[in-house]
Amino acid sequence: MIIIGEKINGSIASVAKAIRERDEAHIRRLALKQTECGADYLDIAAGTAPDQEREALAWLVGVVQDTVDTPLCIDSTDCDMIRAMLPLIKKPGLINSVSEERGKSDQLMPEIADSEWKIIALTCDDRGVSTDPAVKLAIAETIIGKAKRLGIEEERLFIDPTVTALSAVGDSLPSFTETARLVRERFPSVHITSGLSNISYGLPCRKAINQQFFCLALAAGMDSAIMDPTSADMRAVLYATEALLGKDRLCRRYLQAYRKGLIGTKAPADTGA
Amino acid sequence: MIIIGEKINGSIASVAKAIRERDEAHIRRLALKQTECGADYLDIAAGTAPDQEREALAWLVGVVQDTVDTPLCIDSTDCDMIRAMLPLIKKPGLINSVSEERGKSDQLMPEIADSEWKIIALTCDDRGVSTDPAVKLAIAETIIGKAKRLGIEEERLFIDPTVTALSAVGDSLPSFTETARLVRERFPSVHITSGLSNISYGLPCRKAINQQFFCLALAAGMDSAIMDPTSADMRAVLYATEALLGKDRLCRRYLQAYRKGLIGTKAPADTGA
Repeated sequence: MIIIGEKINGSIASVAKAIRERDEAHIRRLALKQTECGADYLDIAAGTAPDQEREALAWLVGVVQDTVDTPLCIDSTDCDMIRAMLPLIKKPGLINSVSEERGKSDQLMPEIADSEWKIIALTCDDRGVSTDPAVKLAIAETIIGKAKRLGIEEERLFIDPTVTALSAVGDSLPSFTETARLVRERFPSVHITSGLSNISYGLPCRKAINQQFFCLALAAGMDSAIMDPTSADMRAVLYATEALLGKDRLCRRYLQAYRKGLIGTKAPADTGA
Repeated sequence: MIIIGEKINGSIASVAKAIRERDEAHIRRLALKQTECGADYLDIAAGTAPDQEREALAWLVGVVQDTVDTPLCIDSTDCDMIRAMLPLIKKPGLINSVSEERGKSDQLMPEIADSEWKIIALTCDDRGVSTDPAVKLAIAETIIGKAKRLGIEEERLFIDPTVTALSAVGDSLPSFTETARLVRERFPSVHITSGLSNISYGLPCRKAINQQFFCLALAAGMDSAIMDPTSADMRAVLYATEALLGKDRLCRRYLQAYRKGLIGTKAPADTGA
């Protein structure tokens, strides 16, 4: 399981404030805490006005790299922004994200082909986000094919089957899990990833929906998630589901997480930061 | 979803004490609370010394029937005990349980064939509990076949694929879900049920395992559970999973549960009773 820590994101009010005030201590805490809780990558999104994004992202990258060795997942909807950050980053991490929308995959993939950078690819294109698994699979195939021709191995691709809100689309889950299964079947070495909170947009008590989505997505073959690793509840879902699915022999990781206080009554409550 | 409330069980220390002291008020509270929280049946198990079981069960049946209209699920490992209770029970409920062990299905099924009683059938026999879904399916087929010959409709049968402890058997979950799928495929009208806590026996932080087992079992077609309906956490798993699986159009039941305070921050904490 590859955990991408989601908490350094300017769309979160407290992080937006820290970015505005250049509050290094706040960002350092988020970087350290997520790393301690098992994040394999730290997502870095400035989520601010376009004219300030470059400076904000560069500042975030600097502060986080100065605090932890955890590789970064550089996150922007703007390919130029991502491209501008690459020289600043010490070691190759993840790019979040490309898609077939506005030629994003063609803009970014050639650039990182000869490096060790990895890429999250969303299964959407200029027609938007389909709920049809066959359409999503076709987009994934296009991107994986382009990557292959550029010499980018399947292991460096994280396919995100682009989950829609359950409040708007009743078959959001089957659309996601079926896409995950189809991609996994055709391309056994690619990773499958997703954010865990889009699914509950517009519903109350979102955590309940997010947790069970996490469980069912893992069962469908998802092996990565963009999530809050500091949430004891989310970690409990992860370790328990992996043990149940037979991906944790003799429940070793589950028991270790319990002994470390990462799950169970001794686990620290969510920081809410 | 058919919820069988599990809390009136003499193997729970506080209930054992209430049975010893004939504390009607305690039993009434459990009956009322579980009914309010959506129990469709109330499991009634005395779980006491064999020479006291009959008297204890009869007392429990009397108190619960006198308190709520919720049908009972009469629970004993002893067929004679169940048989002795039937005349005391005002309206047909569930029998928990028969199996192919020591001829239990042959002892009890003819007795209730011409009534409206329903039966939980465990997929085990005199060889014990197998982890092989094919063996479990064969036992289910035997029991369903016998029921059919007695005129007991599939709708009156609750097949329990007999979950084993994950700490002892690594493939407990796939053995359960595969059995559930096979049974559901062959016999679309039978119910699939299970207790939710056996799976976590011997592990710490059992709730995490129980919750994700519940989610994955629902995804495999389970449509009933022997559970604690007073647990807000378990209800959240139920309503969220059903909404995700497309079994709750427009999330109506999920939203209703939220409005009623059955899930979410306003939901009452577990009684722990």
